[in-house]
Amino acid sequence: MKKLIYSYDKFNELISMFHIDKGYNKKIARIDLTNEKISIEEIDDYIYRMYLGGRGLGAYFLLKELKPRIDPFSPENKLIFATGILTGVPLPGLSKYSVISKSPLTNGFGEAEAGGFFGPELKFAGFDALIIEGKSERPVYLWINDGKIEIRDANHLWGKTIKEVQEEIRKELNDKLIRIASIGLAGENLVRYACIINELKYVNGRSGLGAVMGSKKLKAIAVRGHGKIKFSNEEKIHEMIKWFSKNWKNFPNVVARSIYGTAIGINALNKVGILPTKNFQGGYFDKAEKISGETMKETILIKTEGCYACPIRCKRIVKGKPPYETDPDYGGPEYETIAALGSLCCIDDINAIALANQMCNAYGLDTISTGCVIAFAMECYENGILTKNDTNGLDLKFGNKEAMLKLIEMIAKREGIGDLLAEGVMRASKKIGKGSEKFALHVKGKEVPLHDPRGKTGVGLAYALSPSGADHMQANHDPTFEKESEDFKPLGILKPVNSLSLGPEKVRLFIYAHLWWSLFDCLGICKFPFIPHPNGFIKINQLIEIINAVTGWETSLWELMKVGERAINIARCFNIREGFTNNDDDLPERFFEEIKFGPSKGFKINKEEFYKAIEIYYEMMGWDKNTGIPTKAKLDELDIGWAYNAIFK
Amino acid sequence: MKKLIYSYDKFNELISMFHIDKGYNKKIARIDLTNEKISIEEIDDYIYRMYLGGRGLGAYFLLKELKPRIDPFSPENKLIFATGILTGVPLPGLSKYSVISKSPLTNGFGEAEAGGFFGPELKFAGFDALIIEGKSERPVYLWINDGKIEIRDANHLWGKTIKEVQEEIRKELNDKLIRIASIGLAGENLVRYACIINELKYVNGRSGLGAVMGSKKLKAIAVRGHGKIKFSNEEKIHEMIKWFSKNWKNFPNVVARSIYGTAIGINALNKVGILPTKNFQGGYFDKAEKISGETMKETILIKTEGCYACPIRCKRIVKGKPPYETDPDYGGPEYETIAALGSLCCIDDINAIALANQMCNAYGLDTISTGCVIAFAMECYENGILTKNDTNGLDLKFGNKEAMLKLIEMIAKREGIGDLLAEGVMRASKKIGKGSEKFALHVKGKEVPLHDPRGKTGVGLAYALSPSGADHMQANHDPTFEKESEDFKPLGILKPVNSLSLGPEKVRLFIYAHLWWSLFDCLGICKFPFIPHPNGFIKINQLIEIINAVTGWETSLWELMKVGERAINIARCFNIREGFTNNDDDLPERFFEEIKFGPSKGFKINKEEFYKAIEIYYEMMGWDKNTGIPTKAKLDELDIGWAYNAIFK
Repeated sequence: MKKLIYSYDKFNELISMFHIDKGYNKKIARIDLTNEKISIEEIDDYIYRMYLGGRGLGAYFLLKELKPRIDPFSPENKLIFATGILTGVPLPGLSKYSVISKSPLTNGFGEAEAGGFFGPELKFAGFDALIIEGKSERPVYLWINDGKIEIRDANHLWGKTIKEVQEEIRKELNDKLIRIASIGLAGENLVRYACIINELKYVNGRSGLGAVMGSKKLKAIAVRGHGKIKFSNEEKIHEMIKWFSKNWKNFPNVVARSIYGTAIGINALNKVGILPTKNFQGGYFDKAEKISGETMKETILIKTEGCYACPIRCKRIVKGKPPYETDPDYGGPEYETIAALGSLCCIDDINAIALANQMCNAYGLDTISTGCVIAFAMECYENGILTKNDTNGLDLKFGNKEAMLKLIEMIAKREGIGDLLAEGVMRASKKIGKGSEKFALHVKGKEVPLHDPRGKTGVGLAYALSPSGADHMQANHDPTFEKESEDFKPLGILKPVNSLSLGPEKVRLFIYAHLWWSLFDCLGICKFPFIPHPNGFIKINQLIEIINAVTGWETSLWELMKVGERAINIARCFNIREGFTNNDDDLPERFFEEIKFGPSKGFKINKEEFYKAIEIYYEMMGWDKNTGIPTKAKLDELDIGWAYNAIFK
Repeated sequence: MKKLIYSYDKFNELISMFHIDKGYNKKIARIDLTNEKISIEEIDDYIYRMYLGGRGLGAYFLLKELKPRIDPFSPENKLIFATGILTGVPLPGLSKYSVISKSPLTNGFGEAEAGGFFGPELKFAGFDALIIEGKSERPVYLWINDGKIEIRDANHLWGKTIKEVQEEIRKELNDKLIRIASIGLAGENLVRYACIINELKYVNGRSGLGAVMGSKKLKAIAVRGHGKIKFSNEEKIHEMIKWFSKNWKNFPNVVARSIYGTAIGINALNKVGILPTKNFQGGYFDKAEKISGETMKETILIKTEGCYACPIRCKRIVKGKPPYETDPDYGGPEYETIAALGSLCCIDDINAIALANQMCNAYGLDTISTGCVIAFAMECYENGILTKNDTNGLDLKFGNKEAMLKLIEMIAKREGIGDLLAEGVMRASKKIGKGSEKFALHVKGKEVPLHDPRGKTGVGLAYALSPSGADHMQANHDPTFEKESEDFKPLGILKPVNSLSLGPEKVRLFIYAHLWWSLFDCLGICKFPFIPHPNGFIKINQLIEIINAVTGWETSLWELMKVGERAINIARCFNIREGFTNNDDDLPERFFEEIKFGPSKGFKINKEEFYKAIEIYYEMMGWDKNTGIPTKAKLDELDIGWAYNAIFK
């Protein structure tokens, strides 16, 4: 097969490509796998300033181009890889890119961000975004090399693990620095929460986008680029590089994340009683210490690693001990992974969790959904709804680490009960019935991440209102706002807000943070260094300085917050067109019931207050108070009147 | 009488007063004229960051403290003088302060800003704002001197002109540098568009606030202060002072205003056919050249003057020639004054207009309303609705400058027909009847300024939607937005907008500019150096730098736009409580009819489109689409839920 479909013919074009002005190439590639056709499109500056990239640009294309109500696994679905205007700028946290598609998990707006090295490399290779359309007849991969794009045969890669894919492609193309985003067995098998992974450990985790990739028979995308971003103000960027690399160690939260990784959260949340345990029955795991970031550091951690140009190096490199030996190349578990495959399933062995993490990465499974699915199955088993007859003989007791490891494999391979669980908790519980639905913790079909909204209500709003279903990366987790801080004030949050409140002051805080976080995903940046926090690292106005120094714009927080809002509204319009209503903006019943054990025992969300908060949210967002549909006026205010026509034409 | 009511007793307090940290004193003085009681209140930092001062702070106190539906002339009305956090910072345009009260012209939210020297001096004297309550039994004036406040007898000043008052008070208190804001005969006589003047020529013009001052028998406020603003970043401010004083001459629009004053607008607007002429019957005055800024410069201009610390010096100092000799101390006419008392009345003598300007200043009359009232009377006369029997024998033909000058005196003194006209066009036309209503150009009772909305529809929206009635200082005059400019982009306006459109893109532009301009009045700054413009002088991000350098905050355009929006919403709530409805958001019928002559002949506003635009405005603002009442959610989003309770309790 090996077709050279597109390349820059003219030398001048090639040269110009190597200078990426303002942080973006102004070029996207459209790859039609059905017809093996590739075209390059030039994008107007206006579009970059309106949407910035990432989530914003992806949402724009998805709503504009997708036919309504298609099957996510049909050739008509599109898979969009989009960098943001800051992706690849060598400052802390500027390595992210987004994948956007119709999600097979939610049947709505699907998105996932990943750090690592793929996003920057894609931009350096000459493209800000890829739009992948259609479906190949046989397995293929893409080879994107300094402006040239090939569709290559991947028959030999089909069925392989993420690591095998990476090694074989690098060998085949004879370049060890090629960056590869690929799927594993889970994506091939259309597991509805399959993910996409680059460098074996940086993951576009949520929304099942790996399965969309699998449905298109696209095994991997390999990129190599020598482009260089030409900053409008080089001096300023270099000054900032110096400042950040020198100063990040002065911020205790950042340092803690550098030393212990995101797993620093395990002990902290357990202490206050909101570490999700036993499928969210309780908020306290008495063995938490054994699976904490601190324990990981003392036992299996062998080194740390960072995303492109990030000095913080929060990524863990671990080596599990026998019988759960692990391959350091797959990295170590994040907080979410440890809580999902650990406390949520009452598993207390950091080695087994590290291996589970490795298996998920090798097979290309989202660890959050995977853990949530297993905990669901365990609770069904605890209640006799599933028995050994259903589980292929597995003793699915909470705490059974061997069963957990086996289930991961069965899910990826869709073997036995794994085939059912590969559908996610919503679909599995519908099929199982017998009251199992109440153990299926999801919003819009997407499994709930490892933050208990009963202990921080803002997260509950985020779960219910995120366009892509239960998502913990939609807004600040509120306890940070319980302390007054200068860092919040540019956002207009002048006074502390109680983490358990659901009043208008909470909804307001949630919305402002929500717009701000939405912006992050449009820019292509990591939340950790940038989130407003009482001891926050990179301040809001510093981010604006970075954008201006890269692009030469004179932007403002007003303009930027509107970009974040724009992306949220487009995603909302997309969901409405797909048939979602305000009834889908909800939480699993469990969160309206009391936490059963631990220091936060008895905490629950007041249902009436929660629904009232959602109504206030709609109204504050300029959406219809009852239906949650954005008004035409709101969309016009955001200069996206076309989105209204897209849903009501 | 001469009572010393309040003074700083302790030396330490006195010392601390002389260092005004962050741009504000944190002190307001409440002066109860009925009981001759003065109290000083400490204001929390939070209030300054929420409202900034000026319009914002005034609106806050007015809605919080005023009883609903009182008579504006009753002792229950309050008159608030409020500086903004930037008032008195020695950079271009930072000299403004606001006066806020219930307006006797509109019976709603009344406000007016003035530059000059009074605002900075009030702040230097230790107070950010004064709240004047009750009503004195006899004429008084206030003497505010470095933290001390006296209520002093003003029997000897009652009936005197503005200049006489200034001279006598300075003599009496033996200090030539005392700054005085006072009323003239018009304020004493409760002319509903009487103004307040400082330094004989800097005017809080609109809304009849001088009449409120008169109703309280408060003739003047004299201030002297030696306080000094201590900037959080002194170095930055000094760097900016240098930059601005060196660079303002590079901006042609600023230079034009320096050379020709605001009157530069006469020829420019006449050329395109939207110079208000003959009571807005037409948009072209064939004698415009004779009353233009250019002609003024060549004939009667003797020098220029500027507000506190402003290098632009747009204020004219003129000496009219016999028989219309004028006193240079009263300054020369602005654009609005020339158009109101010139083209609107078809008067072509710049000397007569200069004298009319001087008379308005001496009597304390708003020149815009005065001109509009006289043009109204002239059109009634032209149509036989008023005859010499009604006009005390005056021949009120358009173009009769002698009649115009005589009428000004009669209005101020409420003599003959002047008594009727002192009520403003809305009340006068109601009394006259006979179809005169259609010549009464006002919104909410306030006479229309000298910008024809048929040639720039955004101004029409501003007139209809300003909380204080027809006001041309509520948003950019749109033709500036017909050209793409980097300066608009931080506001989120990426593409040019047609000045004649009324579509959603225009409403959006209007709102964003409206919030931004509202902010100006909260900060205490002049619009001219700061308005976004294709050749704009001080950029949006420079303003933010100024605020941060003064206050030590790290503010953002997001936070600031929300302050502007907050002030608009509070003023809206105030009006709703006073009985205003969406029906009051309208334009005079004349603007829905064609311009009768000149290059823009035939231009008119499409009524249906206009009402649709207002509906879109309500919805974009988060107000009820039909009633125009802010939703509770919108007010909560602005952190002013209390304002909702204020209207619906």
